[in-house]
Amino acid sequence: MSGSTFGNIFKITTWGESHGAGIGVVVDGCPAGLALNETDIQTFLDRRKPGDSRYATQRKEADSVEILSGIFEGKTTGTPISMLVRNTAQRSSDYSEIASYYRPGHADYTFDQKYGFRDYRGGGRSSGRETIGRVAAGAIASKLLAMLDITVTAYTQAIGDIEIPDANCPLSQLDIEEARNNPTGMPNQETSLRAEAYLQECMARMDSAGGIIACRVANLPAGIGEPVFEKLDANLAKAILSIGAVKAFEIGDGIQAASANGSTNNDSFRMDGSSITKVTNHAGGVLGGISDGSELLLRAYFKPTPSIFQTQETVNRAGENIVIQIKGRHDPVIVPRAVVVVESMTAITVLDMLLQNMTARIDKIKQFYL
Amino acid sequence: MSGSTFGNIFKITTWGESHGAGIGVVVDGCPAGLALNETDIQTFLDRRKPGDSRYATQRKEADSVEILSGIFEGKTTGTPISMLVRNTAQRSSDYSEIASYYRPGHADYTFDQKYGFRDYRGGGRSSGRETIGRVAAGAIASKLLAMLDITVTAYTQAIGDIEIPDANCPLSQLDIEEARNNPTGMPNQETSLRAEAYLQECMARMDSAGGIIACRVANLPAGIGEPVFEKLDANLAKAILSIGAVKAFEIGDGIQAASANGSTNNDSFRMDGSSITKVTNHAGGVLGGISDGSELLLRAYFKPTPSIFQTQETVNRAGENIVIQIKGRHDPVIVPRAVVVVESMTAITVLDMLLQNMTARIDKIKQFYL
Amino acid sequence: MSGSTFGNIFKITTWGESHGAGIGVVVDGCPAGLALNETDIQTFLDRRKPGDSRYATQRKEADSVEILSGIFEGKTTGTPISMLVRNTAQRSSDYSEIASYYRPGHADYTFDQKYGFRDYRGGGRSSGRETIGRVAAGAIASKLLAMLDITVTAYTQAIGDIEIPDANCPLSQLDIEEARNNPTGMPNQETSLRAEAYLQECMARMDSAGGIIACRVANLPAGIGEPVFEKLDANLAKAILSIGAVKAFEIGDGIQAASANGSTNNDSFRMDGSSITKVTNHAGGVLGGISDGSELLLRAYFKPTPSIFQTQETVNRAGENIVIQIKGRHDPVIVPRAVVVVESMTAITVLDMLLQNMTARIDKIKQFYL
Amino acid sequence: MSGSTFGNIFKITTWGESHGAGIGVVVDGCPAGLALNETDIQTFLDRRKPGDSRYATQRKEADSVEILSGIFEGKTTGTPISMLVRNTAQRSSDYSEIASYYRPGHADYTFDQKYGFRDYRGGGRSSGRETIGRVAAGAIASKLLAMLDITVTAYTQAIGDIEIPDANCPLSQLDIEEARNNPTGMPNQETSLRAEAYLQECMARMDSAGGIIACRVANLPAGIGEPVFEKLDANLAKAILSIGAVKAFEIGDGIQAASANGSTNNDSFRMDGSSITKVTNHAGGVLGGISDGSELLLRAYFKPTPSIFQTQETVNRAGENIVIQIKGRHDPVIVPRAVVVVESMTAITVLDMLLQNMTARIDKIKQFYL
Repeated sequence: MSGSTFGNIFKITTWGESHGAGIGVVVDGCPAGLALNETDIQTFLDRRKPGDSRYATQRKEADSVEILSGIFEGKTTGTPISMLVRNTAQRSSDYSEIASYYRPGHADYTFDQKYGFRDYRGGGRSSGRETIGRVAAGAIASKLLAMLDITVTAYTQAIGDIEIPDANCPLSQLDIEEARNNPTGMPNQETSLRAEAYLQECMARMDSAGGIIACRVANLPAGIGEPVFEKLDANLAKAILSIGAVKAFEIGDGIQAASANGSTNNDSFRMDGSSITKVTNHAGGVLGGISDGSELLLRAYFKPTPSIFQTQETVNRAGENIVIQIKGRHDPVIVPRAVVVVESMTAITVLDMLLQNMTARIDKIKQFYL
Repeated sequence: MSGSTFGNIFKITTWGESHGAGIGVVVDGCPAGLALNETDIQTFLDRRKPGDSRYATQRKEADSVEILSGIFEGKTTGTPISMLVRNTAQRSSDYSEIASYYRPGHADYTFDQKYGFRDYRGGGRSSGRETIGRVAAGAIASKLLAMLDITVTAYTQAIGDIEIPDANCPLSQLDIEEARNNPTGMPNQETSLRAEAYLQECMARMDSAGGIIACRVANLPAGIGEPVFEKLDANLAKAILSIGAVKAFEIGDGIQAASANGSTNNDSFRMDGSSITKVTNHAGGVLGGISDGSELLLRAYFKPTPSIFQTQETVNRAGENIVIQIKGRHDPVIVPRAVVVVESMTAITVLDMLLQNMTARIDKIKQFYL
Repeated sequence: MSGSTFGNIFKITTWGESHGAGIGVVVDGCPAGLALNETDIQTFLDRRKPGDSRYATQRKEADSVEILSGIFEGKTTGTPISMLVRNTAQRSSDYSEIASYYRPGHADYTFDQKYGFRDYRGGGRSSGRETIGRVAAGAIASKLLAMLDITVTAYTQAIGDIEIPDANCPLSQLDIEEARNNPTGMPNQETSLRAEAYLQECMARMDSAGGIIACRVANLPAGIGEPVFEKLDANLAKAILSIGAVKAFEIGDGIQAASANGSTNNDSFRMDGSSITKVTNHAGGVLGGISDGSELLLRAYFKPTPSIFQTQETVNRAGENIVIQIKGRHDPVIVPRAVVVVESMTAITVLDMLLQNMTARIDKIKQFYL
Repeated sequence: MSGSTFGNIFKITTWGESHGAGIGVVVDGCPAGLALNETDIQTFLDRRKPGDSRYATQRKEADSVEILSGIFEGKTTGTPISMLVRNTAQRSSDYSEIASYYRPGHADYTFDQKYGFRDYRGGGRSSGRETIGRVAAGAIASKLLAMLDITVTAYTQAIGDIEIPDANCPLSQLDIEEARNNPTGMPNQETSLRAEAYLQECMARMDSAGGIIACRVANLPAGIGEPVFEKLDANLAKAILSIGAVKAFEIGDGIQAASANGSTNNDSFRMDGSSITKVTNHAGGVLGGISDGSELLLRAYFKPTPSIFQTQETVNRAGENIVIQIKGRHDPVIVPRAVVVVESMTAITVLDMLLQNMTARIDKIKQFYL
């Protein structure tokens, strides 16, 4: 079965393996007339590069994007936008050993079970490099949303147990500038430094960490999302869980809501001048699967990187119990680099549902065509 | 945009409103040759009925299902199975008042924003009664899975703060028989009684409660799920978040995994005779989006019922701040009745991905056709 | 695999067998705010009923439709519209014999090969009665198109070799009123009488006839259809070939175009006041898969009814060569009753592509949302 | 709306414009384990190159394919196969003039109406070069079908009025070797020479020609195709009409069937040893949308190339009536080069429906998994 396409109208198809010729994406259904060039894409891709961070893989890739189609005279034409990033720093020899066994926490075993064999170099298709295609597409979705005054902002909320204070505070109280420039992606300098100290401790123990990424969408109009299976939050849940290493998703108060009472969890409506607002936002901006005009707030829970340098017990393809020690270049935590991936998948999903919503009412369709 | 269809191969389309003529579902893509009759469906539907529970709505519906197509000589024919449940106990007069205002925590406001107006009777399409279609389809999916020796079991893990002990224990240590017969759906009599006490306290306060439903899939073969966007857990996340009132989803250790280390979160592989197993199951049965042969374990977090009998502040359609007091028939907690809904959506998703997996390998396709 | 759903945004799912409990359709993605009642649907359904025609089956069904959902206060709500027509005049005994053999020209053999068995009563799912769902949905699509001043008109162009004169003449020169009231569906009284004579001759020979249905769409704006796989004419071709008994499809000059030269087949553009028109319309209203603003013109070629009363050679399920003589109630020609089916499938497809087109341009999206 | 993806399980997404950086395709859902290299693809691509034919464009492109992903150790891995062909012989200056006006018979006007502007160089996305992606994917589909002993063979049946004798004769009586090596693609040397003479006459008149391509699928098992909207022939019709310049599609006797009688059009079944065959094949291998085990036979009707060198009347973007004379490099007939495109789209469609059919029966699913 095909599984590399996401979206209904704004539809992306990613392809590529960690150690193949390259990684890419085809974005189909992008509206015509958007000014777009490679710099728009590269800016996003650079956010997921390991950079000089000591908490990220030592594999250094330029990740330079080439736009192969869909742009004419600096604007999208409405036809598919194909984007390509060549792999250049493959060192497949690092991986020759892992061909023979199954790394704990990785997809080695499940790929073998599904397909009979696997491209074992660097995780193949289940490598984090697959997200390059998502981020390239996310750059376009974000630019389109910006044309509609909608902004999507993700950041690291927690690494291990180290969490920013007051995680539900207004976005304006977070230091997003800080988050874009420190190695943790946290919008709070003090917490970020503590998280760094924790990561160094993990590395000293040859261990790895997980964390939480939050994402907020500002200025999303009410009415976006479909009422039953294509709920806005249901599609966001799929989008976020489709990112490798994500193990949980919540919208608004999410997990906490399960132990709350209706009287405290309900958000009262109130007139704000001539427009309707909510006094609180426990719901995270969605009621009945449809955006309610307040800020959309979701969280993704990432497991710790499975590649650790401690010895681990596992089995090999010959069916023997063995002890292994993984080599190669790995991130002790992937959360900081995944921030832009969460932001991209959120932007893609929200845009797709904005487009889907355009056919909801006969009066608006008449206005469009007549 | 259409949003009432779920699944790719085993595809369900639900329809119907709380106070319309009825509720139903069309199941398309059901394989031919499955013995099926109305009792198979009714057994599942009866599990979501309020019954005599004091913690459930006082609306009493027979919810008798009629199979309208797709069965011949007691077996599925491979063509669509259409199922209909007539609404019989509508009391629309209960709802005439709410036509004019927006109930906090409900989809009243968002429907109006999306469609320009709404069927305000009993929540219309966003009523819990919509899940009748899902459960009817889930009954079929579960029966099909049983033919492949796969079983899906959901139960209540928590109501409010009252949680069963040792939530990660083996399924065999839970009293599922108890869960099927008590009013909380909890597989532990002592916890269930405490949860009942808590619910009575909530009702005394004219308040409502939320909770957690866990669902486990036993005997699922390894290799099910697609590696990128159509990950097994990503599709389960969408399936579960598409249920009204669900605000978070986790697979395996999920939320806890975010603060764990790789050394403790990784599940070691080990030979068990001639077959490969995992020593632990923090992953919840999925690696890289593909089932790993161990038990699938997911959790759904439900918010408290938004309909409470306390006075609440809100606005009306005329744009005035008002104070309301909701009438009607409402569940103080929907978790116990939602257990079979979670089980159904899980079964539907797992079955669909089992069918999708059949085309993964050329050797198996050759075996099928030659 | 599921195959009973058609459309991307305006999406219909049909279900039901000839001799089951009933036939129906779920229309999902219908925009909110359309005034709709059962009479709108019934008017269309009545056009496919055999009526008193001697050229149609003697099975008399009321085919009364019940709308089960999706309408509130006389208008569509944007949620699924479920429609049900009960079967009432089943005479399954007519078909007990055909359970054992394969009728030439029917789907008996292919169903058995695919599913292992079949509902043999009256053709089961491949009965012409399946089109009831299409026509009910087509009634809605047509009403929606009418709101946009777009009209869809189908009629019989030929029965056997008897064809209306000047098949490419303007629609205004055809007598559609005549077509709606005579037993052939031909918009020309003289030709219709000749076709009737031909049909009586066929019946005397215990034989059946085929024919051609033409369909025209007036006032369709330019720009509808997508450039590659989702071409307007490609989707129409699928829609039309999905009708049982259709064996060919053409758009515009279609078949004749293959032997024409570019100099005669090209349609010149010309200014008509301030708007662009085409001098001729060999293309049938589509260029590069996208509507060009002129009349859309397509044709469907129907094979003769396979049920004939002559003896025929075939095989039975036991693998023996046998001679059969079909009993039951059959149309000597299905073309007249299929006119409304062609019209419905055309309307559904055109509407779906009109809705899909709304997201083609960023300037129009901005206008919609800002 | 996105429209560049075709297929449900074996799913292809094409991208690229005539004068952009390149043309490509992503093939998702290809089963794992198929031996595949660039030569397999190049062989197919070479069949659509103009070669030295005087009846084809003078634009000479190497059309060298690069496989960017999805292959490991010489075999497909089950993940997306991305293929890229760079454009190298663009001469955009040829097209600067046509930016300002609408060529008759081309998609210039409709693209402008849809998107507000267009990539006018060489037809942009609606160029025949778009089919490179289809043919690259068709090469894979054909190789997969060959593993199942199924072969797909297309050839030119007619150019203008020049048609091969006995178009319904068995495939074995056609000279496919001849068709692969002459400039017309006709499986009959004498007819091909006459067609060449006709084309030279057209060129002398600065005119163009159309024609008919036939395609046959041998050894397709019975039972492929879904009974209602996803009929095998309905999907083939869409696949074929999605090819630029195709104006009609027929299956089996198609057009002729409309004027036949049931007694002659019905194909009798007969035992052939222990297996069931049909005495004739007017149906073209499909009954009720499902393959019947006999040869599949379809035809595509192509209009004459719209680019002719005669003067033509049209309008420009400024809204003035003008007279134009097209320059550039154009095929006087595209039929010979389109043979491999028809073959590819047929192979892709048939393969996709073979894969879809694998979930039709519970007994076979049990056999697969247990």
